[in-house]
Amino acid sequence: MSKPAKPAKPAIKALVFDVFGTVVDWRGTIVREGAAISASVDWAAFADAWRAGYPLAMDRARRGEIAWANIDALHRGILDEIRPRFGLDGLSEAQVQHLNRVWHRLDPWPDTLRGLRRLKAHYVISTLSNGNVSLLVDMAKHARLPWDCVLSAELFQHYKPDPEVYQGAARLLDVAFDELLMVAAHPSDLVAAQRAGLRTAYVPRPLERGAGNPMEPVGEAVFDFTASDFEALATQLGA
Amino acid sequence: MSKPAKPAKPAIKALVFDVFGTVVDWRGTIVREGAAISASVDWAAFADAWRAGYPLAMDRARRGEIAWANIDALHRGILDEIRPRFGLDGLSEAQVQHLNRVWHRLDPWPDTLRGLRRLKAHYVISTLSNGNVSLLVDMAKHARLPWDCVLSAELFQHYKPDPEVYQGAARLLDVAFDELLMVAAHPSDLVAAQRAGLRTAYVPRPLERGAGNPMEPVGEAVFDFTASDFEALATQLGA
Repeated sequence: MSKPAKPAKPAIKALVFDVFGTVVDWRGTIVREGAAISASVDWAAFADAWRAGYPLAMDRARRGEIAWANIDALHRGILDEIRPRFGLDGLSEAQVQHLNRVWHRLDPWPDTLRGLRRLKAHYVISTLSNGNVSLLVDMAKHARLPWDCVLSAELFQHYKPDPEVYQGAARLLDVAFDELLMVAAHPSDLVAAQRAGLRTAYVPRPLERGAGNPMEPVGEAVFDFTASDFEALATQLGA
Repeated sequence: MSKPAKPAKPAIKALVFDVFGTVVDWRGTIVREGAAISASVDWAAFADAWRAGYPLAMDRARRGEIAWANIDALHRGILDEIRPRFGLDGLSEAQVQHLNRVWHRLDPWPDTLRGLRRLKAHYVISTLSNGNVSLLVDMAKHARLPWDCVLSAELFQHYKPDPEVYQGAARLLDVAFDELLMVAAHPSDLVAAQRAGLRTAYVPRPLERGAGNPMEPVGEAVFDFTASDFEALATQLGA
């Protein structure tokens, strides 16, 4: 007896992208901007410490231990905590505010713009980030990211990996969960999207944590697509 | 004694636009698309009847008399109501669905794209429409509207002219109410934005309801800017 055919998956109608690390190079940008502030700070270690505080702060917000706050506020809290350790207590309030908004000015990976433009010609493309709306809008203007739409955890008052974020994006874009493709460099984000019913595309970014530093492990996860960058993803999706 | 100087208003940081009638020509588009369906229908009267049902349906949603529904659903309800009157009961379900989505395919006014591109180079520009997000995203792709962000009443579960919509947009864009400029062809929308604390730009669209048909009266209202089209607005705003 032959196996029953798997039901065909519906066509993908829209793509939503994780942003920090997947679309833009947060660590490289912080290192480059930091070098202009001071030559005596280990900016790579600083960037790593800043980023390391982020999932912890978000988890506390997700568990309701702290009030829901946007990413700018979470970033500022972590920044104030780590500043003394990196010899940055001498910065003025204006300088600290400017530094905190480096997340609004992150630079894209080299393939990002070409890949997004190809994908946009065939699909609706949107952010789906824990970053707040104004941060994502500023970043898109800075980096000329051609989003059709800026969706953020902020709109749902839930952070990824909560299912409300993935399913809320599908509802706003008026597509079925399995017509929506989540694109991310982080397997944990994709596994959560998958559990929420979305399709998934894994685009590893081996330089995200610095050359030679390990990426988040894929483990047992299996994704609908795996692509080396956004241009390769566009090719796989016929865009 | 000289009068005390008025406190200076803060700089405008972002612009939000009413869409139906202000950015796109709903009536002209429906007349053009309708002509391809049937030559024996008065499509201008049909468009007017369809649009006339819209504020009534929204008001019922705003007063809680009907559940909050997105504009696609409201449009469909009105369409089904008026179809027999215009001899359109013979359409198939697929044809009705296609017709209902004409609001996703509306064409911009002649100055829209040039004006928006100039404004975008200097300001954050976003929709602020009672249209749902997916409708606005489809329309932007269709008409190549270069929004930085797609904001909709849907995100706030309130329709304009409720203040939650105007103030919610300012919060998401992270600007003060009076740093946000509402652009609209309808004085009632602008008066509500003003009451909510926003700045206002009136761009009359004398052809919105057909040549020679009266526009919504301005009455006693006074706006921060009045411009004949988006290019004139860009000039006034130094963009």
